[in-house]
Amino acid sequence: MKRNGLTLILVGLLSLGLASLAVAGEKRISKQTKECLSCHAAMPGVVSQWEHSAHWDAGVGCYECHQAQKSDADAMDHYGFTVAVIVSPKDCSQCHPQEAREQMASHHAEAGNILNSQDGLLGQTVGGAPAVVVGCRQCHGSIVKVNEDGTLDTNTWPNTGVGRVNPDGSKGSCSACHTRHRFSKEQARQPETCGKCHLGPDHPQKEVYEESKHGILYRAFKDDLNMDQPKWVAGEDYYDAPTCATCHMSATPDQPVTHDVGDRLSWNLRAPVSMRTENHEQKLAKMKDVCSACHGSPFVEGFYQQLDGAVGLYNDKFAVPAKDIRDLLIKEGVISKANFDDQIDWTYWELWHHEGRRARHGAAMSGPDYAWWHGFYDVAKAFYNHLLPEVKEACEKAGKPELYERIVQTYIEGRPEHEWYVKGFDPKRVQEIKQYYQQRYHQQVQ
Amino acid sequence: MKRNGLTLILVGLLSLGLASLAVAGEKRISKQTKECLSCHAAMPGVVSQWEHSAHWDAGVGCYECHQAQKSDADAMDHYGFTVAVIVSPKDCSQCHPQEAREQMASHHAEAGNILNSQDGLLGQTVGGAPAVVVGCRQCHGSIVKVNEDGTLDTNTWPNTGVGRVNPDGSKGSCSACHTRHRFSKEQARQPETCGKCHLGPDHPQKEVYEESKHGILYRAFKDDLNMDQPKWVAGEDYYDAPTCATCHMSATPDQPVTHDVGDRLSWNLRAPVSMRTENHEQKLAKMKDVCSACHGSPFVEGFYQQLDGAVGLYNDKFAVPAKDIRDLLIKEGVISKANFDDQIDWTYWELWHHEGRRARHGAAMSGPDYAWWHGFYDVAKAFYNHLLPEVKEACEKAGKPELYERIVQTYIEGRPEHEWYVKGFDPKRVQEIKQYYQQRYHQQVQ
Amino acid sequence: MKRNGLTLILVGLLSLGLASLAVAGEKRISKQTKECLSCHAAMPGVVSQWEHSAHWDAGVGCYECHQAQKSDADAMDHYGFTVAVIVSPKDCSQCHPQEAREQMASHHAEAGNILNSQDGLLGQTVGGAPAVVVGCRQCHGSIVKVNEDGTLDTNTWPNTGVGRVNPDGSKGSCSACHTRHRFSKEQARQPETCGKCHLGPDHPQKEVYEESKHGILYRAFKDDLNMDQPKWVAGEDYYDAPTCATCHMSATPDQPVTHDVGDRLSWNLRAPVSMRTENHEQKLAKMKDVCSACHGSPFVEGFYQQLDGAVGLYNDKFAVPAKDIRDLLIKEGVISKANFDDQIDWTYWELWHHEGRRARHGAAMSGPDYAWWHGFYDVAKAFYNHLLPEVKEACEKAGKPELYERIVQTYIEGRPEHEWYVKGFDPKRVQEIKQYYQQRYHQQVQ
Repeated sequence: MKRNGLTLILVGLLSLGLASLAVAGEKRISKQTKECLSCHAAMPGVVSQWEHSAHWDAGVGCYECHQAQKSDADAMDHYGFTVAVIVSPKDCSQCHPQEAREQMASHHAEAGNILNSQDGLLGQTVGGAPAVVVGCRQCHGSIVKVNEDGTLDTNTWPNTGVGRVNPDGSKGSCSACHTRHRFSKEQARQPETCGKCHLGPDHPQKEVYEESKHGILYRAFKDDLNMDQPKWVAGEDYYDAPTCATCHMSATPDQPVTHDVGDRLSWNLRAPVSMRTENHEQKLAKMKDVCSACHGSPFVEGFYQQLDGAVGLYNDKFAVPAKDIRDLLIKEGVISKANFDDQIDWTYWELWHHEGRRARHGAAMSGPDYAWWHGFYDVAKAFYNHLLPEVKEACEKAGKPELYERIVQTYIEGRPEHEWYVKGFDPKRVQEIKQYYQQRYHQQVQ
Repeated sequence: MKRNGLTLILVGLLSLGLASLAVAGEKRISKQTKECLSCHAAMPGVVSQWEHSAHWDAGVGCYECHQAQKSDADAMDHYGFTVAVIVSPKDCSQCHPQEAREQMASHHAEAGNILNSQDGLLGQTVGGAPAVVVGCRQCHGSIVKVNEDGTLDTNTWPNTGVGRVNPDGSKGSCSACHTRHRFSKEQARQPETCGKCHLGPDHPQKEVYEESKHGILYRAFKDDLNMDQPKWVAGEDYYDAPTCATCHMSATPDQPVTHDVGDRLSWNLRAPVSMRTENHEQKLAKMKDVCSACHGSPFVEGFYQQLDGAVGLYNDKFAVPAKDIRDLLIKEGVISKANFDDQIDWTYWELWHHEGRRARHGAAMSGPDYAWWHGFYDVAKAFYNHLLPEVKEACEKAGKPELYERIVQTYIEGRPEHEWYVKGFDPKRVQEIKQYYQQRYHQQVQ
Repeated sequence: MKRNGLTLILVGLLSLGLASLAVAGEKRISKQTKECLSCHAAMPGVVSQWEHSAHWDAGVGCYECHQAQKSDADAMDHYGFTVAVIVSPKDCSQCHPQEAREQMASHHAEAGNILNSQDGLLGQTVGGAPAVVVGCRQCHGSIVKVNEDGTLDTNTWPNTGVGRVNPDGSKGSCSACHTRHRFSKEQARQPETCGKCHLGPDHPQKEVYEESKHGILYRAFKDDLNMDQPKWVAGEDYYDAPTCATCHMSATPDQPVTHDVGDRLSWNLRAPVSMRTENHEQKLAKMKDVCSACHGSPFVEGFYQQLDGAVGLYNDKFAVPAKDIRDLLIKEGVISKANFDDQIDWTYWELWHHEGRRARHGAAMSGPDYAWWHGFYDVAKAFYNHLLPEVKEACEKAGKPELYERIVQTYIEGRPEHEWYVKGFDPKRVQEIKQYYQQRYHQQVQ
């Protein structure tokens, strides 16, 4: 953006005032931090970022955060100072105890555990350890290891994963979202911040948000949202668009900000089969309170009925039958109990972990293209065009074609939602469609 | 964005002037709207958005838009007022008759009809009704149903689909693009607005635009485009980048703005086989008039020759043969007449509806990656690696291997564009390529 | 963005001063250019863009760039002037010799050569010539042909591909990045500019950048980066985020800007098997110098160890075995030497050219989702679920099942990294995972 000459003049005039403020700020910088700065001026990015931060203004500098006890696992002697590279949530909690407590109670703090899941197994065995280092762990967090010489094991650091297990035992990394060394609230509230990890084939929240009205309005009115203000209450300090933070974390007139990101989630939309979260009524009430800053209650109630319908469809038509069919194949010895050694394992895995999440997240955050084309359409294709034919083939290979017959009888036939798969489409409808294409495109479509 | 203290002071000085303007604006607010506001202050987002809108400035408030006749299908008594939740294009047309007329004549108004197409059939049967509610209908529009108690059926509302059929019979939803309650022209002109629906595997216009020079320049010079001005004529009010609106809707020195979004489209690039639109010469002339704000005529003519070549390639090499081959299989009883019960149905469907559109839209909007990798590359893969082998297998299964021979003779052999599939690549070229890789990567590539 | 009344007043006051500057600028415009402008006012976009450019300020106008010698291949008489449509790097080098020299020595200048590669073969034969025109060539560049009548062959122009071969023999197109006619440094430095070509399934650098901390910070602090300043030194003129240009081209306190985009790349991450570039130590040192503006040396060294680990994993576990297995199949006559006539050819091609690049670029630019889900996860799926089963089937079809046995013995069995494929997952780990899901989702996962 071009700045005109006037701005420069005005900035000049203002400088006198700002200069005295600056002196005040600088006075607060500790003697130790000043010593740090005398060398680390050679990292101008870090220093400048910090100088533009609330930390600088409050006199919180290098030493205040990086100082360590000699007994700390990752303490090191650094030109006479005892410091640590990693500043953990435990360190931050000295000034921000409430935020640290909430984060500690959240799913985020446990994100490292996911690496004990199928995702982790896939990463470590099917992928390989170095892929886990540059992939999984950069979001989920590593278990940071300190080498015998006091340096950090590079298989585990650099890492700012949100569930990082730190040498002091604390979990998480505040700079996962509050990027060092500016620690900007404005930056942390932007959807891109969450989008570092919440994107892609298995949880495309960023893509869904960007498609949604919420994301569209954010792009249009970002400059009106006062995102740099300390107090940031929806419906008091901004009115035109929510970010991820608005709905999941930030304050409303009736509830405070929270760093427990699951505090307003009434559905678990990540699991193979979706179910309500614990205390879901309270969590739902909190979320509806956010909605009400901009939406009337018929809209909010209608939205949730549409969401609940979509989650029910996913569960009942696709997720539960797929799970039951696979369980049955394992029980009958058609496929092995082991994971990911049969094509059916992979198909089922992506059905719930990839396509099924896209359908549910698309519905939950009002991204119609994700709900349908990347979501239910892909779920249905996986179910009908991949899973069922693979089940048939596996049964035949195992010499149990009658098992497939039984599966079709139990899970498909007689179920109105799967009727088309057995009986085909209603010929009358198909005829109408052909006429529609004939009119629309002036061409025959079989 | 940080605001400096000076701005605050200046804003203070300005407030005296603005305050009197504000009084003038407030005077225009009707008695009824003031009563609405007395309760609806509890929805601060809505109120603030409206206060920043041209509607507020013109004294158009809650009651002016939401008032209803007792005889209206969705009228309800609301604390003594007769109002309706939905404000339809018919309502908006009272002040914006020209815009409503143009929208009514456009493809957008008929978008609900698509749900009578294969897309709709897939949605309702293969997906399921709740998927249609959160997916298809959120873009295409629902047929809004009023419950017996006067509330809106939540299977059909909340919904701002661009082809929504309203209780008053009018089609569309102005707030699909002009998001309530700010109704900002600037927001409606942004590419993200169109991107709510025009994105994804089957019509990635948003992605293509973002990749194109047009999208790149928009990101670079958005602040110079005067997008908030009532008058917004390309080449008069802005010069540096077009948005979707610029090319498809907004004014040039020689033509007015239109809400008929198909008014400048000379190709139908959505159909299985592309063909010219009605009155395509006039439509093409209108589009070229837009191009000419920034491009000389050799550039524009050259661009259209490249586009026409790409569309011809899609039609002649892939779309028509694929269609003819499938028609033949149906005629010969190799696959059923029913849709989506053979793998070939799905392959053909995605070939034209997904990959084929990506190729054509990529070419039409200058997104080379979409034209090739997401487009023609995927079309060719679908044709050669999926459709033809599936056709072969289906013929063999049906006991008609000679039919496949005939298909290859008719559609593939002797056609220079398919020669490689039968004869393989020119060995001389392949040899050259291996040498090239050898040089480039210092490694042998077979 | 709304502009308040005050701005308008201040702009008014400033106009007096700017007006005299404008006169000075206008004085520099040549007589010939003024004649051009007398007609070309009908292309207001081009004129306005140029009027906002440094070229205008320097008195470099239409004629200065577009003038030609009668002997030039693409010279044309245009109302008494001898001009050419294309302004080539050779033309630009008259004022910008250093930039032209660097560009000429870069990979960019050779980008047209890629059309001699497998990509080119695919484009021209599997796709078709018109697809190459709207796809490949729009990034890589065409060999511009001049028709007998002096106009440009529309199969080769419009085209601003970065490796375009111009009628004067020079290679490249400066406006590929410095979009005409504003030639803005700010625009050229934005990541979207590079993203015109560096995106998509086979080299998603744009997507990886946007996911990375670098991209997140760019979105947050773009307005603080002084991107419109002539001098743009990381750590001197901006501190908060790098763009693509920062790392690959722009200046640091210790090295100058370069238009040789490969000058800081120590790995070739595009090749089937990755290897070090020539003089990679020097190139690596240059890149680390950029990193050091914001990162301490333990961070930088740790990052590169993680990257090297990921590249090694890709090479050793997947790329080399996949290549060797395919070479063996060709040698043993199981598949033909010809390219892209066996499914295995396609699978191998996408393994390295698509999935394998995504894994490597994701790791190199800190996009964890691209490194894993779009990268190593897809590489592993291609290797285990597609390549190996296809190899087995091809061996069986060729009547050589023992060859597949030999392949498994040689490349899979006894290799710890592939152990799971033969022996399955460790049952103890699988049991732990089931318990984890049980706890996390309160549901049984087989």
